[in-house]
Amino acid sequence: MNEDKLLRLLEEYRAGQIETDQMLDQLKTMPYEKVEGFAHVDHHRALRCGFPEVIFGEGKTGHQIVAISERLLKNADQVLITRLKPEIFEQIQDQLPDGKYNAQAKVFHYANQQTEEKKPGVVVISAGTTDIPVAEEAAITAEAMGSQVERIFDVGVAGLHRLLGYTDALNKANVIVVAAGMEGALPSVVGGLVQVPVIALPTSVGYGASFHGLSALLGMLNSCANGISVVNIDNGFGAGYLAGMINRQSGPVS
Amino acid sequence: MNEDKLLRLLEEYRAGQIETDQMLDQLKTMPYEKVEGFAHVDHHRALRCGFPEVIFGEGKTGHQIVAISERLLKNADQVLITRLKPEIFEQIQDQLPDGKYNAQAKVFHYANQQTEEKKPGVVVISAGTTDIPVAEEAAITAEAMGSQVERIFDVGVAGLHRLLGYTDALNKANVIVVAAGMEGALPSVVGGLVQVPVIALPTSVGYGASFHGLSALLGMLNSCANGISVVNIDNGFGAGYLAGMINRQSGPVS
Amino acid sequence: MNEDKLLRLLEEYRAGQIETDQMLDQLKTMPYEKVEGFAHVDHHRALRCGFPEVIFGEGKTGHQIVAISERLLKNADQVLITRLKPEIFEQIQDQLPDGKYNAQAKVFHYANQQTEEKKPGVVVISAGTTDIPVAEEAAITAEAMGSQVERIFDVGVAGLHRLLGYTDALNKANVIVVAAGMEGALPSVVGGLVQVPVIALPTSVGYGASFHGLSALLGMLNSCANGISVVNIDNGFGAGYLAGMINRQSGPVS
Amino acid sequence: MNEDKLLRLLEEYRAGQIETDQMLDQLKTMPYEKVEGFAHVDHHRALRCGFPEVIFGEGKTGHQIVAISERLLKNADQVLITRLKPEIFEQIQDQLPDGKYNAQAKVFHYANQQTEEKKPGVVVISAGTTDIPVAEEAAITAEAMGSQVERIFDVGVAGLHRLLGYTDALNKANVIVVAAGMEGALPSVVGGLVQVPVIALPTSVGYGASFHGLSALLGMLNSCANGISVVNIDNGFGAGYLAGMINRQSGPVS
Amino acid sequence: MNEDKLLRLLEEYRAGQIETDQMLDQLKTMPYEKVEGFAHVDHHRALRCGFPEVIFGEGKTGHQIVAISERLLKNADQVLITRLKPEIFEQIQDQLPDGKYNAQAKVFHYANQQTEEKKPGVVVISAGTTDIPVAEEAAITAEAMGSQVERIFDVGVAGLHRLLGYTDALNKANVIVVAAGMEGALPSVVGGLVQVPVIALPTSVGYGASFHGLSALLGMLNSCANGISVVNIDNGFGAGYLAGMINRQSGPVS
Amino acid sequence: MNEDKLLRLLEEYRAGQIETDQMLDQLKTMPYEKVEGFAHVDHHRALRCGFPEVIFGEGKTGHQIVAISERLLKNADQVLITRLKPEIFEQIQDQLPDGKYNAQAKVFHYANQQTEEKKPGVVVISAGTTDIPVAEEAAITAEAMGSQVERIFDVGVAGLHRLLGYTDALNKANVIVVAAGMEGALPSVVGGLVQVPVIALPTSVGYGASFHGLSALLGMLNSCANGISVVNIDNGFGAGYLAGMINRQSGPVS
Amino acid sequence: MNEDKLLRLLEEYRAGQIETDQMLDQLKTMPYEKVEGFAHVDHHRALRCGFPEVIFGEGKTGHQIVAISERLLKNADQVLITRLKPEIFEQIQDQLPDGKYNAQAKVFHYANQQTEEKKPGVVVISAGTTDIPVAEEAAITAEAMGSQVERIFDVGVAGLHRLLGYTDALNKANVIVVAAGMEGALPSVVGGLVQVPVIALPTSVGYGASFHGLSALLGMLNSCANGISVVNIDNGFGAGYLAGMINRQSGPVS
Amino acid sequence: MNEDKLLRLLEEYRAGQIETDQMLDQLKTMPYEKVEGFAHVDHHRALRCGFPEVIFGEGKTGHQIVAISERLLKNADQVLITRLKPEIFEQIQDQLPDGKYNAQAKVFHYANQQTEEKKPGVVVISAGTTDIPVAEEAAITAEAMGSQVERIFDVGVAGLHRLLGYTDALNKANVIVVAAGMEGALPSVVGGLVQVPVIALPTSVGYGASFHGLSALLGMLNSCANGISVVNIDNGFGAGYLAGMINRQSGPVS
Repeated sequence: MNEDKLLRLLEEYRAGQIETDQMLDQLKTMPYEKVEGFAHVDHHRALRCGFPEVIFGEGKTGHQIVAISERLLKNADQVLITRLKPEIFEQIQDQLPDGKYNAQAKVFHYANQQTEEKKPGVVVISAGTTDIPVAEEAAITAEAMGSQVERIFDVGVAGLHRLLGYTDALNKANVIVVAAGMEGALPSVVGGLVQVPVIALPTSVGYGASFHGLSALLGMLNSCANGISVVNIDNGFGAGYLAGMINRQSGPVS
Repeated sequence: MNEDKLLRLLEEYRAGQIETDQMLDQLKTMPYEKVEGFAHVDHHRALRCGFPEVIFGEGKTGHQIVAISERLLKNADQVLITRLKPEIFEQIQDQLPDGKYNAQAKVFHYANQQTEEKKPGVVVISAGTTDIPVAEEAAITAEAMGSQVERIFDVGVAGLHRLLGYTDALNKANVIVVAAGMEGALPSVVGGLVQVPVIALPTSVGYGASFHGLSALLGMLNSCANGISVVNIDNGFGAGYLAGMINRQSGPVS
Repeated sequence: MNEDKLLRLLEEYRAGQIETDQMLDQLKTMPYEKVEGFAHVDHHRALRCGFPEVIFGEGKTGHQIVAISERLLKNADQVLITRLKPEIFEQIQDQLPDGKYNAQAKVFHYANQQTEEKKPGVVVISAGTTDIPVAEEAAITAEAMGSQVERIFDVGVAGLHRLLGYTDALNKANVIVVAAGMEGALPSVVGGLVQVPVIALPTSVGYGASFHGLSALLGMLNSCANGISVVNIDNGFGAGYLAGMINRQSGPVS
Repeated sequence: MNEDKLLRLLEEYRAGQIETDQMLDQLKTMPYEKVEGFAHVDHHRALRCGFPEVIFGEGKTGHQIVAISERLLKNADQVLITRLKPEIFEQIQDQLPDGKYNAQAKVFHYANQQTEEKKPGVVVISAGTTDIPVAEEAAITAEAMGSQVERIFDVGVAGLHRLLGYTDALNKANVIVVAAGMEGALPSVVGGLVQVPVIALPTSVGYGASFHGLSALLGMLNSCANGISVVNIDNGFGAGYLAGMINRQSGPVS
Repeated sequence: MNEDKLLRLLEEYRAGQIETDQMLDQLKTMPYEKVEGFAHVDHHRALRCGFPEVIFGEGKTGHQIVAISERLLKNADQVLITRLKPEIFEQIQDQLPDGKYNAQAKVFHYANQQTEEKKPGVVVISAGTTDIPVAEEAAITAEAMGSQVERIFDVGVAGLHRLLGYTDALNKANVIVVAAGMEGALPSVVGGLVQVPVIALPTSVGYGASFHGLSALLGMLNSCANGISVVNIDNGFGAGYLAGMINRQSGPVS
Repeated sequence: MNEDKLLRLLEEYRAGQIETDQMLDQLKTMPYEKVEGFAHVDHHRALRCGFPEVIFGEGKTGHQIVAISERLLKNADQVLITRLKPEIFEQIQDQLPDGKYNAQAKVFHYANQQTEEKKPGVVVISAGTTDIPVAEEAAITAEAMGSQVERIFDVGVAGLHRLLGYTDALNKANVIVVAAGMEGALPSVVGGLVQVPVIALPTSVGYGASFHGLSALLGMLNSCANGISVVNIDNGFGAGYLAGMINRQSGPVS
Repeated sequence: MNEDKLLRLLEEYRAGQIETDQMLDQLKTMPYEKVEGFAHVDHHRALRCGFPEVIFGEGKTGHQIVAISERLLKNADQVLITRLKPEIFEQIQDQLPDGKYNAQAKVFHYANQQTEEKKPGVVVISAGTTDIPVAEEAAITAEAMGSQVERIFDVGVAGLHRLLGYTDALNKANVIVVAAGMEGALPSVVGGLVQVPVIALPTSVGYGASFHGLSALLGMLNSCANGISVVNIDNGFGAGYLAGMINRQSGPVS
Repeated sequence: MNEDKLLRLLEEYRAGQIETDQMLDQLKTMPYEKVEGFAHVDHHRALRCGFPEVIFGEGKTGHQIVAISERLLKNADQVLITRLKPEIFEQIQDQLPDGKYNAQAKVFHYANQQTEEKKPGVVVISAGTTDIPVAEEAAITAEAMGSQVERIFDVGVAGLHRLLGYTDALNKANVIVVAAGMEGALPSVVGGLVQVPVIALPTSVGYGASFHGLSALLGMLNSCANGISVVNIDNGFGAGYLAGMINRQSGPVS
């Protein structure tokens, strides 16, 4: 129930068009509608902020994805579809609006008009080349949320000088996403070089005792550097979303 | 090697007081000293930002803590000692400067002068009363970093209305820390109500299949809400530090 | 050995048609046959209660399923086949009686006559859309056991207002099944809103640190709400069966 | 905000004593207060149902427990304190009302007047003698909720005849709690003998590969019997509460 | 080096045909040849005992299996090939000797002549029908080792009377193999009924929290019954081999 | 219900002293009494076999142990108390009969008369010296069951020659218990040297990645040698009991 | 920045061609370039040592592998491609230089000229035949690094005499790689026989409780023999690389 | 049986003093004695190499330690006692020879004469100050084995410049031990900087999701750097022993 409707209700009541009993009943069922309305306010805020609507594509059929995206696009300026496999994308690309599909990151992004200029401040780092798809998912998500993203890929800890060559870029960031599999040590090293939030993004890259990303996840949770937090294994979207959120609310890059 | 020293070196070299060979040797060993110097710059930045120096008290003797804090206080305006057990604190409190000790959170904080006004924007939530010590550690840490912290304790998901009564406070936050043990569900609920970063802080509260916080940790990593990231079990310091960092760099609370 | 047979035996014995030695031997081997008979009594009770016979379809060939269902249908009014894959169903549907097959839940249900009216009182909730197949398996099972089921799908904790809009339905339930994957937080929230048994049904929905449902399972076992118990991951049948059982023996919905 | 208050508000508004703007503001902040009110309704229901207020004693000081119980007793007829260690109980027993303390189960129960007659229908079983404390916690909880409890202890699966001697008692139950550690097999056996809900209660009894109750927990979750659900390891309170809930809403024992 | 060869060597040495130095060298390298010889003695013992040579078929190509079995059959009267997939068997069956292949248990057994009469005393039990392939692997292995095997399948703990009907058979056994997946409770029940060794054979049957047999394995390791030991998950061969070994060395069935 | 009682019942029935209805009722309730009787038969068999009654001392008070042992000793010739801590033993030794207490193995054994001669055939091996308490528990248990036990301690795989020096003893065994912690490799090596059942007994000896015996347990379950089965971590009693059982039913040592 | 460049810079500065400010800036950004240069020195060292460049083939397309190998071969005398599946190799073998491909080990090795003579001292052992691919990967890697490798395959602990026959070879080694799956016991046995470093290489060979190599990994980490260290499951390359490194720096085989 | 004894035996045999039968018997039992002899040769080699005899002190009484060390000192020039708690050391220090005790590392070392000069080449690094006890255990062990050890402590990855300042020392090493808890990332970084074996030594330092060193262990096993292998958690002795072994057999430091 939005404010207008409530206002109309109150006026009808004061005007005697609604009985007290009825009014009471209306109000007793309203709370959750108001929560609903609250969500609408959020929704408006979301739209105002330029946060895209998101579809998690995994496990959905092409038909389902098209149906949901059509519905979302009635209200939203942007739609982001994550974990959209190339074979599904090919089936449905004619029915989707004219956006960009990144096959490596398995992300489709549509923005119905040129959004305002991207705000700089997000850096996305990957430890190895095999971590790039997950890192790219994070980068595209942050971009969809209005951030300009600097990508620094393949700078793992076993060759430190590669990372150290990017100190300038790191020092300009408001927030840094660091994707790494295997031992997941890179976020600790990055966290020691900067004074901004580092979002550690474990990937399932590895074999044997990497246990599908568990090793990287545990390593990142136990980081001895400050300012680090962790998202789920392979959750590039989550890392990118949080990075976009932090960058948006950050002051200008110092 | 700081800039002054380097400058002097260059001038001596240009003045012919140092031979090219010697100069080359000096410079060849300089890189890591320069990294050292780089760290100094960071250090200055840290001091300028008001980030406190931190001592992780666990496993250290009273003697060690006193020694480290004395050394730190020569350069720093603030010292934060975490995981400082009451019995250790009692032994050494005469030797520490005149700060505040919170026995529940096991945190000692000393600031050598009234720091500038705290910036509002951090909310720290706990699911239960037994999560309060960890939540409090986060709150004190964020305060030491210059944030004003609103505490909302004992608002777990099994009694939703308790949390919902605090919607206003949530909506004013720049960043929210949510401490919860057992099933660790609260960050998801909070994440669904707000549009700012939520730092999920799993605690080891629970028994049986909580496996010392593992259950809460996994729950938080798998959160279906956006904008959530996770720190280590019982890592109140880490959550508070990150919250302070995000709040510091955030624009004014909208 | 059923009662009739035992009666006949006793009469033959009293009539001297069976020797004491023979009678003793018969009786000595009877106990477990009597247990068998006991089971028959149960069986009668089961039939009287309208509990269906159940075939767990996973890992069985179409041929095996047809053979078992034919045998069961000689004695039972209903047969429920769970985990029956669409491709197997297609092979055998001509040989099965004329029941209903739900491809999403992979459940086939046959009732040889219109059973008595369904008793209201079971609510089945799913957190996300991907949890629906498991939730639907629970719902169909409870229906097969004589319950009328209200389905409330896609009301996960990250958008609380969706769930709160269904408070009326929740308050009318005798028992509620809550299916959720990922962090598995929904049963705690539901458990805090109602005063009836909540059956938590973890699903394997998720990725990374969800570890195929382990995260949801642990979350549910550690729920801080009262009145919650948990079944195996993806065990929609078990949850639905228990819900049907509790609803059957409950008094009228208050 | 309760109904009376809302009614008064409406009347004042209609009477023109409150402006539309003010009224709108009042109503906009009301929802969660109404949720609060909703909870009150629940609260009344709880009191009407005779459900006791519960204090989880673990990790609380004697002082805290006394304070909470005093506050609760102002509104509640009963208080149940679980996980109350004997040494804490001794400290505070003078300040607690005159209830019963069971040192083995670590449960204190106070009921401020003779509650109505207990309803039969709950059976609590333990596999071994070392499971009795947890089983007893379940039994006392169910009793506090108004159920009459039949205890059947030390009837583990390795001596089947012990359990089979209690078939009559099992057949009279509305709900059965089965506490077992080690391999946790007893609930499956019981579940195969009855047609009522079985609440499996894993205990941490065992050593080595029991992994503090994990083995029993997994065994129970994987039970091949129908009608079984599981609570957390050593969660006697949870099992007893659920049993009391199911028994309360069950029709008369058939 | 077998005894004959050693004898010849000694005689040559005593006869002066070999120098002391040479003899010393021969003997210094002999130990492991003697171990080799020791193994030969074992080998003879194995043959004398009728233990078959065994090929673990998993991961081997048809070509490899044929080659190994041809080599083995030069010295052995029997060959047992386990984990031989039907598709591999079909490729190679023309090249194998004329034995028996059990497609369900994936075992091929060849005995080059009618071995002596089988010794009774082994019982192989399965909890469910899906455990039968593993149970059958155990049974065929025990038969290949000279035991007569009684199979009792589908007598899981949730329907106790089924097992209790076989008390006679159980009482005649020298050793019992019990295959069960899911909660793995059956060995405990069987162990409580008999006074002979019970070999618990966990299977990977189950889903969700069965974790591919881990649940059954842990349950069996924690059995509260005496006389139980456990083999690896799905290790039907290992259980059958041990059963055959125990039965062979047991006195006549009492 | 024993045979006599049943016979009398039949005779009364044939004599018309009992009505058919009554007779039917008697027989319907008999099965479990008969199971009870069946257990008695077992009990007799146990006594006849000389198997001792066993008390698991862990977690029991001295008082409880004395009470149970007194009750048991009325019917049994032997009592074995395992996991009896020295401090408990000291408290109660005056009240126990005059048996032998082994403080290292924490086992008390009482036999009320000189039992018949011990049967040779059991070997108990330990890998290290720290495994000896568990190995000793196994050895004493097997002795209590009538076996003569050869102990071979501290012959771990890292010094193979120590074990190989005992080949003669190994070859004379009917069954071998092998206790090992850490990597748990010794049972595989022993299993490769002999042709009799090897009972692998993992101990919790170790640190770090031994995870309290898990490493040894897994190693033993995965043994590549034949004839090996495993008991729970530190379950010396279980291994010794099974060894005694196998030795008892084995033919004379070949 | 290499030395030449730095020298030139210094000379230009002394000659007054560069201002002090500019010089300072150059030097401030130099450290990581110098680290880069440092790496070059390493690179030279690597080339001088004959260490090959390595491509981890898993997850890379044929196209990617060809591109990387072409780039590497411009600077390197050797390229080693690991985890190169036969089907990928077939696609690209025309584009690769004329090296050797081992389909079992999935390793391709190219050396652009006959490298100097291999240094003896590396022994690679496998416990079973199914461990050979991983062992072979280790052996080929060590060979590519300039070591001569002695292979001893299929000498698992369950048939000790097989290993003991190779004592001579073991005694000549500078370093030994031991590949084993299942219980992973072989490195302990080998470690007990020699006085040189043993690299334990767990393989994922096994089933059930081997948990994809976890059992072998834990066994090896807990080895009671001295001089043993462990690499990741199935990491034949890592073991071979380390073995080559140790052998290269070892003195002549004693 | 040593060579002399065998020679005498052969001569007696040739001289006819021993019958062929007797000789055969002697030789048949000799192999393992010869293995024994083989071990003696090893033993001599160990003494010649200066490897100390080692006592693992954990779980041993002061009395046991004194007894073992006295026996060992009859044959050995050095004794190293690890995991010797200060309270035990105090009890027995009068009975031990006059060695050095390091209370932090819990290591006692006695060398009965000034051993030859230590060989440089071992570096031991610790990530944090709390890792020092384990690192120190490694260092003392390597020293006892004849190596000169350079200690570099408290140079964790979150402050990279600290480590980079020690490049010279790293480049002079033959082998490097890196002790780290928490995320265990330091060995990867070190491994990327050097071209010598790195022994990764996980410590149990940490809390929460460090799971007593598991996190560090997994991180190290998954290291993306080459030349790294891992020992058990907190196994400072093992790392130091291996380092000493590698250093001993390495050529002069390049």
